[in-house]
Amino acid sequence: MNGADRLCDTLLVNEVDVCFANPGTSEMHFVAALDRKPQMRCVLGLFEGVVTGAADGYARMADKPAATLLHCGPGMANALANMHNARRARTPMINVVGDHATYHLVHDAPLTSDIESLAAPMSHYVRRIATPEDVGPAIGEAYAAAMSLPGVTTVILPADCAWGSVEPANVRPTAVPAAKTVSAETVREVAAALRKHAARAALMMTGSSLREGPMAMAARICATTGCRMIGQMSNGRIERGAGRVALPKVPYPVDIALGQLKDIDLLVLVGAQVPVGFFAYPGKPGRLIHDGCIVTTLASPGDDLPGAIDALAGELGATKATPAFIAEPAAPDEGLPTGALDADKVCTIVATLLPENSIICDESVSSGRVFYQQCHRAPQHDYIQLTGGAIGEGIPLAIGAAVACPDRKVIGMQADGSGMYTVQGLWTQARENLDIVTVVFANRTYQILHGEMRAVGVNEFGRNAKLMLNLDEPALDWVMMAKGMGVEAARAETAEEFAALFKGALSRKGPFLIEAVI
Amino acid sequence: MNGADRLCDTLLVNEVDVCFANPGTSEMHFVAALDRKPQMRCVLGLFEGVVTGAADGYARMADKPAATLLHCGPGMANALANMHNARRARTPMINVVGDHATYHLVHDAPLTSDIESLAAPMSHYVRRIATPEDVGPAIGEAYAAAMSLPGVTTVILPADCAWGSVEPANVRPTAVPAAKTVSAETVREVAAALRKHAARAALMMTGSSLREGPMAMAARICATTGCRMIGQMSNGRIERGAGRVALPKVPYPVDIALGQLKDIDLLVLVGAQVPVGFFAYPGKPGRLIHDGCIVTTLASPGDDLPGAIDALAGELGATKATPAFIAEPAAPDEGLPTGALDADKVCTIVATLLPENSIICDESVSSGRVFYQQCHRAPQHDYIQLTGGAIGEGIPLAIGAAVACPDRKVIGMQADGSGMYTVQGLWTQARENLDIVTVVFANRTYQILHGEMRAVGVNEFGRNAKLMLNLDEPALDWVMMAKGMGVEAARAETAEEFAALFKGALSRKGPFLIEAVI
Repeated sequence: MNGADRLCDTLLVNEVDVCFANPGTSEMHFVAALDRKPQMRCVLGLFEGVVTGAADGYARMADKPAATLLHCGPGMANALANMHNARRARTPMINVVGDHATYHLVHDAPLTSDIESLAAPMSHYVRRIATPEDVGPAIGEAYAAAMSLPGVTTVILPADCAWGSVEPANVRPTAVPAAKTVSAETVREVAAALRKHAARAALMMTGSSLREGPMAMAARICATTGCRMIGQMSNGRIERGAGRVALPKVPYPVDIALGQLKDIDLLVLVGAQVPVGFFAYPGKPGRLIHDGCIVTTLASPGDDLPGAIDALAGELGATKATPAFIAEPAAPDEGLPTGALDADKVCTIVATLLPENSIICDESVSSGRVFYQQCHRAPQHDYIQLTGGAIGEGIPLAIGAAVACPDRKVIGMQADGSGMYTVQGLWTQARENLDIVTVVFANRTYQILHGEMRAVGVNEFGRNAKLMLNLDEPALDWVMMAKGMGVEAARAETAEEFAALFKGALSRKGPFLIEAVI
Repeated sequence: MNGADRLCDTLLVNEVDVCFANPGTSEMHFVAALDRKPQMRCVLGLFEGVVTGAADGYARMADKPAATLLHCGPGMANALANMHNARRARTPMINVVGDHATYHLVHDAPLTSDIESLAAPMSHYVRRIATPEDVGPAIGEAYAAAMSLPGVTTVILPADCAWGSVEPANVRPTAVPAAKTVSAETVREVAAALRKHAARAALMMTGSSLREGPMAMAARICATTGCRMIGQMSNGRIERGAGRVALPKVPYPVDIALGQLKDIDLLVLVGAQVPVGFFAYPGKPGRLIHDGCIVTTLASPGDDLPGAIDALAGELGATKATPAFIAEPAAPDEGLPTGALDADKVCTIVATLLPENSIICDESVSSGRVFYQQCHRAPQHDYIQLTGGAIGEGIPLAIGAAVACPDRKVIGMQADGSGMYTVQGLWTQARENLDIVTVVFANRTYQILHGEMRAVGVNEFGRNAKLMLNLDEPALDWVMMAKGMGVEAARAETAEEFAALFKGALSRKGPFLIEAVI
């Protein structure tokens, strides 16, 4: 057996059994080894951003990493933007990047590049495999790091380490360090601070604290102390819907965010960062909390966030309290919007018709403004979203979620401009016959940038600004593009048409795309 | 005026008047400044790889850089693969990457990343702008570096350096260092070595040595000394066709390349590298010349390559010799191939019908095997190709060439697998109404990887290998994808159909795509 076989065995023994792939020549032995492992599910992406975006969506829903197979530095470069999003979501991921044989690097062949320099900014962990026998330990270590940090790991696999022989061995599962327990002293201090600041305190939450159980426990803390709970602006996954906490998030517009947080004198971080502006604007602050706000950390990424919340609730005597902020089910459908379509109507129709146990992949950008709020009272669902601002993750994210959860309906809320960055992902949706409804908000502009231009004082556009911010000449025909990649699709120009298409898409299995012209 | 205005002024005064762009929020002041400069041509790409691939194609044909506008680290990450190709072609390019305001970086907002670490492997020059007043000097220095190295430059533009005020100033053109003259001693030594090794010597050429004039002069040297001339495996641009040198290149398959070079005892580098295998294979050498081959450098990138060739010809008394290797015009058309279509027939038809003064953008990968050879005797044309092995450059390269040369027909020879990486570029072809015929070789596999799998001893594929190497389930419908992005398109399944469509496409203006099912 060779190093590539060992690689596959090490992944499989750790139950990493999905590999999103875009292979090249230096990975041929890895491909051949995967071909000897039918228990590994290999999913091809026609572009590397599809591969890592799918791995991100998969791990958010599966709670374990997928592997990716990427080709040399330039191939990984194409994957970086969605590795960046995964890094921000702290998604476990094991990227395997093929490189030239160790002895070939000296020749500076055309595809040679400094993979470590490229990988480091978008990875929590980078390791170059040194020998065929190093493959097993390296992949094991990457798996443990992906699960425990948690985060994005990148392992560089020289071709000769893949094709070189290894001694047969009984590969054993890798021990994963347990999430760190937050100290009792920290819990006591945070509890005391929460009691003191009461209604002027907030829990700032992300990561594994946004599952149903820890959110309900946090809501008991809120009920007991009077504090609020807020989600980070962007989060890897939130369990939502009626009967669960209706969690507000920090909004994108700086002024609205400042308003939301202006009365907070104590911010308790639960795996989260201090909220800051997504961008800087002249004359506006970077931090979204006021200067006098005390920031304290209950738990950091890699800590046992649910355990920390439980401990805090215990310290506060809150474990039996009735949770605050639980969403009531929506009233029975009072009729869907009608008439000319706009973004808000699309959101309302999706939120109203949302099926129980669905997964929402949200890259709606400016068009989905009202959507998150509208889904508070929808049937229970998972909400996963763009986390790092690197647009072009929506279509791949849906792929990964659908691979992880084949029995659940995945709904992609997709801005048109963003969707074009990884439009090739539609083919993978068709190839794998994934149960995904993609709703494209076809406003035919970079709408968010129109707002940002106004924010910098430009209200009238000349030719160059129009050329760079509008997508209307020619208009993209999403129906043809989708069909060209094997995905059934249709266009809606009224609310009635959209509702009918969306109901139809929910009633069938397999990928379907609706171009909502707004 | 602000730093962004100064940026535009500095580009324009240096005659950099095309900006391929994919903007985001941190570049809004740059967009606003571009909007005040109607003399700057702004071309939108819907994905950053389109932007840098187009800038590469533009500069190869215009002999001056375009600017690019990229958004933060993740946006530039999407641009890196084609920056890599441009780096290998040593194409002048000025990438302007917007970043957060200097004082905002400390907050680690979601889009923050280490741009320098990402940019360095794919750039010859990287500089972060420090202040608004630093914008002009930085852009000037980048321009000079792009032209003189020559190569890819990346300038990081913090938002506050774009929006901050600068003193009005009379911006002057930047002095560009002249290409270095090769020493007379080097010329004498190379001349002596060529005389000695005669027919067992070869000039290994690339860069600006592959224009008509220097190639003809090199061919005079060959006629005088008996040596050969060979192009690097991949080159930025070659002036070709009947009446010019029929330049052989180093072929991709290692065994064939070894055969080509086995009798070479003296290799003279003219801006080129020692030829090496594109990849390493077990048991095969990395360097493609034999161990006893003497390697000597006439000129390096950044040197005056045409001047060095002239000097060498002078030293050898070759300047009046009749050049060797000049291609005769092809015989009058003896009829085009007929019947079922295959890759070779497509190549033959294109080579036979090639219009005078056209520009070929070659990313045909395995399908174009015979094409380069077939074009030796075609009417004169420029040949630009994938240089760094980072597939997904063909469609953007054609955009850039067409923007640089609006009066010339651009013909994209495009493998289907590679084309999908930057398929969004078709929209830019439509938006700008560029005169491009894209020929898609629709073999519906990663054909080159089938060959590579055989090279590693795998002849029968299981399910996973098929899933990763074939693109046939479902087949991509290039006609629908192209039309969905506004590009007229049609499909050919026979040689007659292909010839008719290709003739039709040549007789009209504007973008057209032919899906050649092979």
